[in-house]
Amino acid sequence: MSLTGPQGFRAAGVVAGLKSSGAPDLALVVNDGPRSAAAGVFTRNKVKAAPVLWSQQVLTSGALRAVVLNSGGANACTGPEGFQTAHATAERAAELLGCGAVEVAICSTGLIGAQLPRDAVLAGVEKAHAGLGADEAAGTAAATAIMTTDTVAKQAGYTSEAGWGIGGTTKGAGMIAPSMATMLSVLTTDADLDAAALDTALRAAVRVSFDRLDVDGSMSTNDTVLLLASGASGVRPDPAEFTEALTLTCRSLARQMQADAEGVTKRITVRVTGAASEDDAVVVARTVARDSLVKTALFGSDANWGRIAAAVGYSDAAVDPDRLDIAVNDVPLCTGGVAAGGRTSVDLSGAEIVVAIALGLGHGEGEILTTDLSHAYVEENSAYPT
Amino acid sequence: MSLTGPQGFRAAGVVAGLKSSGAPDLALVVNDGPRSAAAGVFTRNKVKAAPVLWSQQVLTSGALRAVVLNSGGANACTGPEGFQTAHATAERAAELLGCGAVEVAICSTGLIGAQLPRDAVLAGVEKAHAGLGADEAAGTAAATAIMTTDTVAKQAGYTSEAGWGIGGTTKGAGMIAPSMATMLSVLTTDADLDAAALDTALRAAVRVSFDRLDVDGSMSTNDTVLLLASGASGVRPDPAEFTEALTLTCRSLARQMQADAEGVTKRITVRVTGAASEDDAVVVARTVARDSLVKTALFGSDANWGRIAAAVGYSDAAVDPDRLDIAVNDVPLCTGGVAAGGRTSVDLSGAEIVVAIALGLGHGEGEILTTDLSHAYVEENSAYPT
Repeated sequence: MSLTGPQGFRAAGVVAGLKSSGAPDLALVVNDGPRSAAAGVFTRNKVKAAPVLWSQQVLTSGALRAVVLNSGGANACTGPEGFQTAHATAERAAELLGCGAVEVAICSTGLIGAQLPRDAVLAGVEKAHAGLGADEAAGTAAATAIMTTDTVAKQAGYTSEAGWGIGGTTKGAGMIAPSMATMLSVLTTDADLDAAALDTALRAAVRVSFDRLDVDGSMSTNDTVLLLASGASGVRPDPAEFTEALTLTCRSLARQMQADAEGVTKRITVRVTGAASEDDAVVVARTVARDSLVKTALFGSDANWGRIAAAVGYSDAAVDPDRLDIAVNDVPLCTGGVAAGGRTSVDLSGAEIVVAIALGLGHGEGEILTTDLSHAYVEENSAYPT
Repeated sequence: MSLTGPQGFRAAGVVAGLKSSGAPDLALVVNDGPRSAAAGVFTRNKVKAAPVLWSQQVLTSGALRAVVLNSGGANACTGPEGFQTAHATAERAAELLGCGAVEVAICSTGLIGAQLPRDAVLAGVEKAHAGLGADEAAGTAAATAIMTTDTVAKQAGYTSEAGWGIGGTTKGAGMIAPSMATMLSVLTTDADLDAAALDTALRAAVRVSFDRLDVDGSMSTNDTVLLLASGASGVRPDPAEFTEALTLTCRSLARQMQADAEGVTKRITVRVTGAASEDDAVVVARTVARDSLVKTALFGSDANWGRIAAAVGYSDAAVDPDRLDIAVNDVPLCTGGVAAGGRTSVDLSGAEIVVAIALGLGHGEGEILTTDLSHAYVEENSAYPT
């Protein structure tokens, strides 16, 4: 389901001329209400892009009428001039929509450190406003306009039998990391929920979806996830049910980002059980998921579990080396910290790899989605389009 | 200067048959005294190889008569059988030397998770003992026998006008990380120092040399640095002078490891100044040095300072984005958190790159040596000889 799946939303994706390729690069998402409740989660990077600073500020009200998103430039490390560009963008959208600039969030992605061409952005906002649509294709156009090194548009959704739904899109292929996958994501719902309920649900969902995706350990300056509620269905869902549905949607989007990550040839799930706590499980899984030697071995279809054991051992979590079990694709490779055989019998020729680590210490569980470290990753990131 | 440069030491490097290539793979270093003082620093990985567990235990006495080192197998994740192999190796060397097994340290490097062929190791110890020599070539033979993916033997030394000296060797090319470069290193000196003095000097030297090398962020199960003193010069140096000389020697060895790191095409120094503390400076430098996107950009000779800024921003240190200055090879790229121009004018075609980051917060300084992330790194580590 696209962003325009839930009632009360319109969207557009247009060519504003920010990308030298001439591909779509500006999206507008509008919440026509009756509600304009919203919540957001942002990067924890201390170097924040201008649109993040702007959007964090306007979201303190808990209300958003629209979001302008652009690819073709991150508007990060751009100083006061960059912030003014974000502000002017919100102003222009607000004029066109008849609302205040503080009801418009901004998201940007692309190269850090370059100013966006302000006139082109503002003209793009007008073009997008003129092209707003409420059909499925309009949402897909918005999803397409925020792509950078993504090769496919990413969308997901949920439809409740009670009459409300969720639609979502995301972009993200590299610089995917720590506290939140490096990404822009917009989620829409016609459920009748206030900002506080949205905030609670969004934080719970992000914690176990986007936050559990780690492609390269690099946290970006622009990470933003926004959730907008129109209330147009008139239905107020049970909070637990809504959180569950939102989590499913976010997980689907995270999986789509994993599958389309820069240079990916293997989709790796690192699953940790038996940790002293959930936090410890996630720490161990993340450490293994980030280890360059593990990632290159899996790229080479080599079940080099010794590298996995080494990464478990240097993670900042409680580990007893004599209780460590490691299996890859269900083949036990290490039991009680010692080789269990099987290294050469694991079939890693497929694209899907599950690394299962049992610590034998407690009941903490957690998993991280990651990818391998391939020649294509190096190629793509050593020749980034400037 | 090789390990046998200082008086009172003999060494050998032989083919024990642990490497399928038939290259030298076992080294013996003997301290003939009159002293047998020693100190060591070991990996902080919670998964420790059998030789690390053995050597940590025997070093509590502060005395070592010999060290047996082998490549061709890490003897890590090998359980009681692996520990017995380490023990038996020390026993055999002790018999030959007429000392106790607790005076013999063991170091191993190679694939994790496979048992070493014990008979071959023991035969290798005998062969090495029969071939012990005190000349420069004997030290070099030992340095050569501990190489894994290293392409050259690494040696360094220092000669004091007061009549004492230091010799050292190291190996390490990948899995070079956090608390200590992943490596085996043996240092010898004929200075007349006791174990406590050696320990103090070694910790101080390692902290600003091996600990400041970070190739891929992966801390190994086998990291070991040993310092042996024979006292044969009869000279007791000033502790500060000895520490300084030891630090210079370790820094030289660290630089040699950087230059020979797996897949290296660029030798990168990340230098941080103006941090709130020295710890913060090192944290920021290490975060940047580990960032895959920074490392691939530099591989591509692209001065993509936005990625550097992003890595600074997600480091676990005090950072004010508005005070951040970044220069690469002396060309200012970012001033006060904003583009300073110059990105396309930086010449990164050479092998030596200096990334200078000024945080503008205090007087903390620190640097980390690292390398780029190249196709050759991926190639070498996705096709590790098994």
